[in-house]
Amino acid sequence: MGERSLSESLERCLAKVTEVIRGHNSFVLLEHEKPDGDCVGSGLAMVLALQSMGKQVILVSHDSHPAIYDFLPGRRFYTRAAYLEPGDFSPEVAIFLDCTDPERAGSALKLAAGRLWVNIDHHVSNTCFGDAQLVDPNASATGEIVYDLLACLGVEVTKDIATCIYVAIVTDTGGFRYQNTTGDCLRLAAVLLEKGVTAWGIAEQVFETRSVSSVLLLGHALSTLKLYRGGKVAAVTVTREMMKASGAALEETEGIIGYPRSVAGVEVALFLREFEDGKGFHVSFRSKTKVDVAGVAVSLGGGGHPRAAGALVEGTIEEATAKAMAALERVPWTDS
Amino acid sequence: MGERSLSESLERCLAKVTEVIRGHNSFVLLEHEKPDGDCVGSGLAMVLALQSMGKQVILVSHDSHPAIYDFLPGRRFYTRAAYLEPGDFSPEVAIFLDCTDPERAGSALKLAAGRLWVNIDHHVSNTCFGDAQLVDPNASATGEIVYDLLACLGVEVTKDIATCIYVAIVTDTGGFRYQNTTGDCLRLAAVLLEKGVTAWGIAEQVFETRSVSSVLLLGHALSTLKLYRGGKVAAVTVTREMMKASGAALEETEGIIGYPRSVAGVEVALFLREFEDGKGFHVSFRSKTKVDVAGVAVSLGGGGHPRAAGALVEGTIEEATAKAMAALERVPWTDS
Repeated sequence: MGERSLSESLERCLAKVTEVIRGHNSFVLLEHEKPDGDCVGSGLAMVLALQSMGKQVILVSHDSHPAIYDFLPGRRFYTRAAYLEPGDFSPEVAIFLDCTDPERAGSALKLAAGRLWVNIDHHVSNTCFGDAQLVDPNASATGEIVYDLLACLGVEVTKDIATCIYVAIVTDTGGFRYQNTTGDCLRLAAVLLEKGVTAWGIAEQVFETRSVSSVLLLGHALSTLKLYRGGKVAAVTVTREMMKASGAALEETEGIIGYPRSVAGVEVALFLREFEDGKGFHVSFRSKTKVDVAGVAVSLGGGGHPRAAGALVEGTIEEATAKAMAALERVPWTDS
Repeated sequence: MGERSLSESLERCLAKVTEVIRGHNSFVLLEHEKPDGDCVGSGLAMVLALQSMGKQVILVSHDSHPAIYDFLPGRRFYTRAAYLEPGDFSPEVAIFLDCTDPERAGSALKLAAGRLWVNIDHHVSNTCFGDAQLVDPNASATGEIVYDLLACLGVEVTKDIATCIYVAIVTDTGGFRYQNTTGDCLRLAAVLLEKGVTAWGIAEQVFETRSVSSVLLLGHALSTLKLYRGGKVAAVTVTREMMKASGAALEETEGIIGYPRSVAGVEVALFLREFEDGKGFHVSFRSKTKVDVAGVAVSLGGGGHPRAAGALVEGTIEEATAKAMAALERVPWTDS
């Protein structure tokens, strides 16, 4: 058994999935589109485990694994869905990892057609699809559930498997910094460390590896930091020129908004990214506790969640900022 | 007893310190100069614990606590050494926390004169001073030892005490990312979480709180990123002008060098900070695994450790960079 104490119904699910795995010989593991550390780590851990049981297995995803995970073991059993035709490999079982619904697998889904489906996930929004399900929203990451499963299967958790599961957990909890960080996941991390995982080495690989272009873009963006509303709103801007000068890709703008959000006293952070045609800005909003930025974004024709939202705003940087600030004035601030 | 299994000699130390604390009624707790999260967290945890035992206690340090720790409980029992004269409070026992030697307490040391000295620390370089010692270099943080001590004293670890100890551990391990991250410390973190500690809230307070000036300075500095030696050396610069424009204090330059160091493929990072008189640069070096930057710094008249070193280099930015790069060429690179 794993380290956690599980509910009876989860124990039953675990037993059923164990039975399915023991009773079959060939498996395709499916990740969701744009695989993250939890997907990649869970997938590679399962690959190594099934290999050690003498099973045939491949791991498939719609998109490539991010390069920061290239150090993980087991990668030779991984491929992109585009490189495979359904006839190339005919597994008996398809295991969906970290996918709320089958469609999350994107083009990899074609490899699951006609197989027995196993659904392993920790998202509360999981649609409970599949012939056998192992869905636990209390798990910090799908990797935590994979650990329970390997314990049930009697698979030895080697240093390589432990490393994959550690990556799954440490990335999905933002380095044990997000709300899904639980005592159970820290205790599992401790067990994994004692199996030889190098916490500092993994942290350096997954959290402290940047591209030149992303560092330059971050520099240009943070240099534009401006405060509004007595320091309760902070905004940074990325122009087309900055994107060009830094050579950054669009996805490298992710995470920049965390810096204005982190300024002491700031309640709402804005990140303005210029349209490619220069006619306006994509404005992202993040709030801490006092403002529902979904409402702000909706009033600008956009949408999102109470703490993270966005809208497209036409005009110059001054005009777009003024429109965003005006929208922020129209919603209630619970402290004012 | 605590969560860890301790050596017999540590158990004896623990028993002795427990005896000293039980046998006395008034305590001064001393932190080191420039107190960090481990110092502050350990100190406040001890304050709350001794208070709960009905003891008289104050926590004193040479420098103020950094503002990011203002959310911690127990602060009303803390003061700066400058605000106290030795006659103001005459405790029986002085407990040094996280101090390798008594002098690390700076001006707070005056309050320890003539008292019984207890030395609680986790640094391998601790000089083992004091009448009773509790020094464990295997502990990730002094806070981890404080937890063992409170268990021995039979003090209930409340949510407040758990929060202080969590801050001690999470800061001294860099958010469980440094080499001192052990299974024991993660297991203790799990226990603390289950006592009500909010991991994400603490992470936001201690890792995600920045000043406007530090964000602006980071922006200006990262915009200067340059690569050398085929991408194996990355350098960023902070000029006097940037310091002035951002309004940043000198200590806000700390941590900037982590960004060039994090660039994929970089082995050595340089951080150049202009002298206040404009006549040269303070050059900091960080290396990953292949270069002994202490040797590089020494050849420029500076010094340091193999992975972190620095030197003062006169000249313009171009001249200082050229001198630093030439010094880097003179030392062996283990991969070349």
